[in-house]
Amino acid sequence: MTNLYQDTIVAPATIPGTGAISIVRISGPEAFSIADAVVKLKSGTISEASAYTIHFGFVYEQEALLDEVLVSVFRAPHSYTGEDSVEISTHASRYIVSELIRLLVDAGCRLAQPGEFTRRAFLNGKMDLSQAEAVADVISSTTAASHRVAMNQLKGGFSHELSSLREQLLEMASLLELELDFSEEDVEFADREKLVSLLSATQEQVDGLASSFHQGNLIKNGIPVAIVGGTNAGKSTLLNRLVGEERAIVTDIPGTTRDTIEECMNLSGLLFRFIDTAGIRESSDTVERLGIERTFQKISQAEIVLGMLDASLPEPDLLANLRQICGQVDFGHQKLILLANKADLMEEAGVNKIVSDINTFVLNNNYKVDIIPVAAKAGLGIEKLKNALLAQTKDLVPNEDSTFITNARHYEALKNASSALASCRTSLSKGIPSDLIAEDLRRALSAINSILGTDLVDPETILHHIFAKHCIGK
Amino acid sequence: MTNLYQDTIVAPATIPGTGAISIVRISGPEAFSIADAVVKLKSGTISEASAYTIHFGFVYEQEALLDEVLVSVFRAPHSYTGEDSVEISTHASRYIVSELIRLLVDAGCRLAQPGEFTRRAFLNGKMDLSQAEAVADVISSTTAASHRVAMNQLKGGFSHELSSLREQLLEMASLLELELDFSEEDVEFADREKLVSLLSATQEQVDGLASSFHQGNLIKNGIPVAIVGGTNAGKSTLLNRLVGEERAIVTDIPGTTRDTIEECMNLSGLLFRFIDTAGIRESSDTVERLGIERTFQKISQAEIVLGMLDASLPEPDLLANLRQICGQVDFGHQKLILLANKADLMEEAGVNKIVSDINTFVLNNNYKVDIIPVAAKAGLGIEKLKNALLAQTKDLVPNEDSTFITNARHYEALKNASSALASCRTSLSKGIPSDLIAEDLRRALSAINSILGTDLVDPETILHHIFAKHCIGK
Repeated sequence: MTNLYQDTIVAPATIPGTGAISIVRISGPEAFSIADAVVKLKSGTISEASAYTIHFGFVYEQEALLDEVLVSVFRAPHSYTGEDSVEISTHASRYIVSELIRLLVDAGCRLAQPGEFTRRAFLNGKMDLSQAEAVADVISSTTAASHRVAMNQLKGGFSHELSSLREQLLEMASLLELELDFSEEDVEFADREKLVSLLSATQEQVDGLASSFHQGNLIKNGIPVAIVGGTNAGKSTLLNRLVGEERAIVTDIPGTTRDTIEECMNLSGLLFRFIDTAGIRESSDTVERLGIERTFQKISQAEIVLGMLDASLPEPDLLANLRQICGQVDFGHQKLILLANKADLMEEAGVNKIVSDINTFVLNNNYKVDIIPVAAKAGLGIEKLKNALLAQTKDLVPNEDSTFITNARHYEALKNASSALASCRTSLSKGIPSDLIAEDLRRALSAINSILGTDLVDPETILHHIFAKHCIGK
Repeated sequence: MTNLYQDTIVAPATIPGTGAISIVRISGPEAFSIADAVVKLKSGTISEASAYTIHFGFVYEQEALLDEVLVSVFRAPHSYTGEDSVEISTHASRYIVSELIRLLVDAGCRLAQPGEFTRRAFLNGKMDLSQAEAVADVISSTTAASHRVAMNQLKGGFSHELSSLREQLLEMASLLELELDFSEEDVEFADREKLVSLLSATQEQVDGLASSFHQGNLIKNGIPVAIVGGTNAGKSTLLNRLVGEERAIVTDIPGTTRDTIEECMNLSGLLFRFIDTAGIRESSDTVERLGIERTFQKISQAEIVLGMLDASLPEPDLLANLRQICGQVDFGHQKLILLANKADLMEEAGVNKIVSDINTFVLNNNYKVDIIPVAAKAGLGIEKLKNALLAQTKDLVPNEDSTFITNARHYEALKNASSALASCRTSLSKGIPSDLIAEDLRRALSAINSILGTDLVDPETILHHIFAKHCIGK
């Protein structure tokens, strides 16, 4: 037991302000006695109260009533932190909350550090580390998909997969350790062939999880969609049309750089980040070229490229624009959706001709592309575009069982585990002694354990890093 | 009973965001059954749960877990609204809260209007109207004084005074009504002399409450302090020095116009609004003159004027500035504190000479003024200034029993009551028949009742006006 368990912490659990109720939360061995020193219940005391009960009480500051409050009582280990805990519900006033916290600190509480309630929940065994990390993700989720991924992690779906991996690794490791114990007798308890196939299967599972990081990141931070095309093709009109229609559910992504114009849209539970790349053109100005380079970089990071073509242009110009757009797409990693804009200004036959021309060009070049006639200004074809975007990203819609890694720390640990397992296989194939193989297995095991928080090399640093990202009060 | 009582309302009671917990509140006859339809408790149902108990449960959206929640159960009439109520505590996620509310609405809840929980508390007799109005004031209070005034009103201190006023008025009215019943017999049950002295006492009490509106407003919205003086006297330096030192507890007053520079400071629990009037000088520019007129208007609205003098100026200039400052002060209503700035640049004898010169000028003109030598830049004399500000406003520090009116509706009602009582006295002195006097008394009574909400002429309009100012969820 560290010192951490000896003191009682306090923090606001809600933001005071335009709401109705604010909650101040206390957790630790002295939670009840400190709360009793500050809150006078209408009858009885908090220390005597049963778990899961609510009590009406008064908080006085010297002689004056600070507030009437409701006190909720949680008894260890059946609380969020696993410790004795009290939630005090007050009027949602900044003044009341800050005075109440001052009174509680005077009575013996310590102000909680960011994420300290969740950290205690982890240290008290209420959840593993990957679950604790999911709490911050659940709070910041803004779409159905990101919420589901975070909630699945919080509920232990990811932990469950890791635990089964760990079981397999432990079994292999124990067989090898057994050989070490009898090393003088030169026996092989572990069937080498079986071991190799087990290692392959395990590594495949680890790699599968690690590779879900890319998709997990898209779900969590939004799917970047670059809108490219010649000047006056209608890129900004399209962006406004797309985002404007969905204004009510536009979400903010923290940390979005303002170098390029980005707008977010929640489409059927997935977050799309549209990047307007207006401004790409030949330029001799050094500063402008730097800006354009940055835009190209943004395009290269996009998951999907929307290529805007002005269908009303003469055919040679259209094809020149088409070539320019296709030249910006990395068809190995990116998906291209071509939009033949201003289709409403043309005869149907003309539109069909253009779509067919584009198709021919695309097929000749062996590109895989969706082609959609749209009229950004009039709002025609927008539904088709949305459906195409959803079709291109249908793998990102999580179901109840799917696990996506969204955390760089987990990704790194899985990569370490994978490389340790690969090293095991190489060693086995080269007939390297089992003590070295066992060392690699332990390395893989340790990487998996570090995700769950059961085997942290430098616990204090890692925990501080993880929980500092949580907000105060959680 | 109106329709209002038949439906069950829902609203977030906290702001989702950087906090840890969000609360969604349900109130109304179907609160338990609707909550049961949306939340699956780990054991039992909300409908069967005892009052004041907390339950762990799960909210599912189709098949997927939306969140693990805690449910607090309140049974009528022992709840905030007086109705069956449920508070659902979730992770503080915008997504979870909006989805949960959508599920509750689908299950039969109606979205609450602003202030509707408090409105129901009033309509269900949990508090009178002046107490209900105090809820919004308690939430928005940012200083000890404004909090105490609002809390006193919420706790019914003001209502208690009004009730005793009403008792007196009712007694007088009933005596007069008795006379009306026996009017054919021309008896006077009410001793006219006693009635007049009772009326005087009652009116004095009403006027006392009405006159506290000025002070109550100062406590609630801040005490305006105008800083005036010649150019380069050190006005802005003083403002920065005053506010900068207290930056941590600077508060925002909503609706502060940005026409003039205003900074707020919480000083010993009172809110001061400092108005920097930099820019007063002779000007021929029309636009600038308009700005200066606005500044003069701000000065005229100040409770206290801080006159900044540059003590290092030659005596004739100093006295000219002094005359200019005094000319801007309305000594009937405003208090003047003169600051002899840059005192640190001078010998003590020089400072004493200047203070004595100022004193002579002030005495000759019969002004009542504090004079404080300061050095705004070096921060000398600031404590003395703060003490002088507190001394000038000590009447505004509320104790447990003091009642201050802070609400324009109450002020208007008290003024109406006062004028009705004055009319009674005139009528009595002129020997006007008691039925007309009784009519005036009823008018006074009705005005007092309207504050408590027991006798509203146009209840729907008045209640809408009052509760629309509350936030959603309260």
